[in-house]
Amino acid sequence: METINRLKENVEIILPQDGLEQKLEQAKNENRSLVIKLGFDPTAPDLHLGHAVVLKKMKQFQDFGHQIVILVGSFTATIGDPTGKNKSRKPLSIEEVQHNAETYISQLSKVIDVSKAKIVFNSEWLDKLSSSELIQLLSKVTVAQLMHRNDFNKRFTENTPISMHELLYPILQGFDSVKLNCDVEMGGTDQLFNCTMGRQLQETFNLSPQIVMCMPLLKGLDGKEKMSKSLNNIIGLTDEPTEMFGKTMSIPDNLILEYLDLATDFSPEEKQVVKERLSTGENPMDIKKAIAKNIISQYHSKEDADKAERFFQNQFQNKKFDEKAFTPVAIESLEAQNTALALINLCQKLKADMTKSALKRLIEGGGVQVNNDKVMDSFLDIELVAGTKIRIGKRDFYELL
Amino acid sequence: METINRLKENVEIILPQDGLEQKLEQAKNENRSLVIKLGFDPTAPDLHLGHAVVLKKMKQFQDFGHQIVILVGSFTATIGDPTGKNKSRKPLSIEEVQHNAETYISQLSKVIDVSKAKIVFNSEWLDKLSSSELIQLLSKVTVAQLMHRNDFNKRFTENTPISMHELLYPILQGFDSVKLNCDVEMGGTDQLFNCTMGRQLQETFNLSPQIVMCMPLLKGLDGKEKMSKSLNNIIGLTDEPTEMFGKTMSIPDNLILEYLDLATDFSPEEKQVVKERLSTGENPMDIKKAIAKNIISQYHSKEDADKAERFFQNQFQNKKFDEKAFTPVAIESLEAQNTALALINLCQKLKADMTKSALKRLIEGGGVQVNNDKVMDSFLDIELVAGTKIRIGKRDFYELL
Repeated sequence: METINRLKENVEIILPQDGLEQKLEQAKNENRSLVIKLGFDPTAPDLHLGHAVVLKKMKQFQDFGHQIVILVGSFTATIGDPTGKNKSRKPLSIEEVQHNAETYISQLSKVIDVSKAKIVFNSEWLDKLSSSELIQLLSKVTVAQLMHRNDFNKRFTENTPISMHELLYPILQGFDSVKLNCDVEMGGTDQLFNCTMGRQLQETFNLSPQIVMCMPLLKGLDGKEKMSKSLNNIIGLTDEPTEMFGKTMSIPDNLILEYLDLATDFSPEEKQVVKERLSTGENPMDIKKAIAKNIISQYHSKEDADKAERFFQNQFQNKKFDEKAFTPVAIESLEAQNTALALINLCQKLKADMTKSALKRLIEGGGVQVNNDKVMDSFLDIELVAGTKIRIGKRDFYELL
Repeated sequence: METINRLKENVEIILPQDGLEQKLEQAKNENRSLVIKLGFDPTAPDLHLGHAVVLKKMKQFQDFGHQIVILVGSFTATIGDPTGKNKSRKPLSIEEVQHNAETYISQLSKVIDVSKAKIVFNSEWLDKLSSSELIQLLSKVTVAQLMHRNDFNKRFTENTPISMHELLYPILQGFDSVKLNCDVEMGGTDQLFNCTMGRQLQETFNLSPQIVMCMPLLKGLDGKEKMSKSLNNIIGLTDEPTEMFGKTMSIPDNLILEYLDLATDFSPEEKQVVKERLSTGENPMDIKKAIAKNIISQYHSKEDADKAERFFQNQFQNKKFDEKAFTPVAIESLEAQNTALALINLCQKLKADMTKSALKRLIEGGGVQVNNDKVMDSFLDIELVAGTKIRIGKRDFYELL
């Protein structure tokens, strides 16, 4: 019972609801461990706290003695998006896939015990599939079923083109579960549809259908969208401790409980204590510090967490704007001075990892200051001269030389 | 100009409209003949006058020196309908495909010069297609495009399941045109969508898109539905001359012009003469006779046509019911006597090629007579004893022994 409760903790969807109990019972009777699958696309192997939510659940299964399987979607990655419309899906070479997978797996080791995990590449079986076998597979699924997937449905209704091959991805993902004879497929809630396809295909292949377990999608630093590298709102698992600390301190207060539940590894009792501190009016900043230190302890060390806290105190919290540590910037790098355009160009150079639209939002939200003034409204009056101090976001300070 | 007019004669759709002129011009400039494709499914190789409409157009191209290609859809036939829902699409063995193709080709020789035609099997290239190449191919086509096909659209709207693999058939048919680098694809008007897919795929493969030529669908003997074996309303190319004659005489008068245009090989001038005879009030039966004789001359011989006419006159036209030539039937073959059921069972035995539902319709329409009485209403009073005479339809007469 204890096991079940731990395994169900934080899970947003289990399909079918009592499936996990049944699978555990079944495995016990058959004197075997469960096969738990998690798939990933080896395209952009930068893991962040959002990924860790699912990975920590995988680790729990591992701790209870089950066999976790990390599936590398190498087949689809080498196909990519053949229409060339989707930049994030450009086809990768086998070497790129291999390299990305290695990077990914080394990052996985921050959460799971990679030595005990089974790592498989789906090109192993999908490369060998003949066109006629693929067509046989497609016959198991109807068009209407696929059109029930939210995004397909929306695009079809709105006349946004869906290429035929896109409909195949969920089917191939389901076929992976057939090949691996999975008991459980894990994913974020956005993977519910694809994981359910596995159940259906396993049944047509006379296998016991897997159960689907979906973890909630952790919100990113903006507090609005799910954490995603393309939205530039992530805390990466390989971020430096001071970066992790600063980013965690920057989350909006309404994310505190979500991060406490999903991003920390506090025990249920410890979480309860933190929640009580929060509800009795303690400064949210102190709670965030506790969360930040816990996160750093997980991905670096307790010592790193303490250091990062001290650095943060010295660097930011104990100083006013004028006393911050400014990064010098050569004035020569400005293309035109004293204009809004120059400021935007400058910010883009300084923060190359931010998209133009994210930067625009930041500026409009008052997140950029020049000489202590927010530059929301007065773009045309900015003096960018030697000595001008610029703050971008909460933690980046620059001074023009 | 003469060539163009002949080639365009009777064609219902040419896409694009001026495509044939352009293709002929292009071929002339490149000093080559055109490649004209016609595909068929090697499932039920019984050719009838409906098929001949398209085949005769192929023959015309052949007569003008062009290369016709008969494509045997062997790949899809060996896949069949993997869902098993569609009986007409059960998967065939390679031997069955080969056998059906041979039967089909021997029937083709009644219309085209098989020795000069190129006969190809699409399993040649489709069998070799890997799943990843197939997926690349699928990426060229959108779901919405396929859903524009009338039958898919109707089924999708009515929530009638469409299996995913069904969407693939038009794409594979189009890919055949890529592989064959076709200039023209021929078909009935029901093939317009599938043939158009070939144009699109050829363009994505940087080939000059084929033009599509669709012939009208000849109506069957019932005068309502298109001629189709499953509707039991066909004149088969291998039907005996007397059968052909009788069937042609049985078409409703409103089909006369259609059969004159599409089923005979009268010259345009001869057709004009026949049309004038009809419009000046000549007995339609005489016109039908001329058509019947022309049809028999095409698929058998002029002599057979004359014989069949004489047989028909003697057998049917000059006699009353009681004087017809009755086929004797052993009374033992009746399972239960004097009941409606017995009559239906008997009719089924005598006309094994009719479906139960067609037979039912025939009876309800007064098409079955016992001793000169229609048996529409009085099923339970039928006496089936030695000497009972039964007429089924217009041309089949039996007498119980």
